[in-house]
Amino acid sequence: MQLFTERGFESTTVAEIAERAGLTERTFFRHFTDKREVLFAGSASLVELLAEHVAGAPDAATPIDAVSGALQAAGAVIQQRGDWSRRRQAVIVANSELQERELIKLASLASTLAEALRRRGVDDPGASLTAEAGIVAFKVAYERWVQQPTKRNLPRLIQESLDQLRAITAGG
Amino acid sequence: MQLFTERGFESTTVAEIAERAGLTERTFFRHFTDKREVLFAGSASLVELLAEHVAGAPDAATPIDAVSGALQAAGAVIQQRGDWSRRRQAVIVANSELQERELIKLASLASTLAEALRRRGVDDPGASLTAEAGIVAFKVAYERWVQQPTKRNLPRLIQESLDQLRAITAGG
Repeated sequence: MQLFTERGFESTTVAEIAERAGLTERTFFRHFTDKREVLFAGSASLVELLAEHVAGAPDAATPIDAVSGALQAAGAVIQQRGDWSRRRQAVIVANSELQERELIKLASLASTLAEALRRRGVDDPGASLTAEAGIVAFKVAYERWVQQPTKRNLPRLIQESLDQLRAITAGG
Repeated sequence: MQLFTERGFESTTVAEIAERAGLTERTFFRHFTDKREVLFAGSASLVELLAEHVAGAPDAATPIDAVSGALQAAGAVIQQRGDWSRRRQAVIVANSELQERELIKLASLASTLAEALRRRGVDDPGASLTAEAGIVAFKVAYERWVQQPTKRNLPRLIQESLDQLRAITAGG
């Protein structure tokens, strides 16, 4: 990550990343398919965490509450990455291909949430709408948090975003 | 579009598209940068239409009403493309690169709406949240509409999606 910050994502080679991390290139490729995966590898565990939390929400939880709980749990995990996330964001914002990949990863998180809701018996289009609304709140909260990740609380910002989304759709 | 449907997007060449349309390849490239643009060229005019409608909404309109009006106006334009949209969707769903491009185009529509709201004096994160919520409603409505575009009314489905989003975020 430090290399990406110093030299830019495009100019950094896998050989340099491996050297800095004290790995051989072969070991690097055992963990990551390419250098972009250094930035996006975390999303597979987020997918699992979101699916588990929606599945494990109390029976009485409304769909948006199940999604909210899952996203706040994910937020708590991301919170621990602290300043790493801020540097990662700076690398992504500087590269349009990485921005597109970030969009695609967010879309896959939304699909995961929608599928988990369907398994709880939520019909479409409600399942898709709830999942996408949750991801919108998450995305906006994340963008606020990542500017000062050590000072702000991501789960709380996610809750605030959802509250604001409620006020907005009610015509506020 | 018919060629994409018959042969698949990947196997269709620009030469074939131009021939079917009665154009030379040179004329084709005067209108489109590549064959993908045949599918996405409409989004530039949508960007303009959305920006104009948000700017032109009554002063008393809430942010979500301004966005809703703009999206329904866009929906009315898309409605006229009727069955073309259904064939376009079938081509896109079959190709992951095109799906990613569709996501990116939707993200740029959301940015357009957010920027238009900021010009109306709406602060962030409210402007981003309102714009993204509108695009979520639009996307879900579009996916429902495009299955039977000649039988369903897209502006009405957009309104329904926004109503449902309100009920969902209120905990329904």
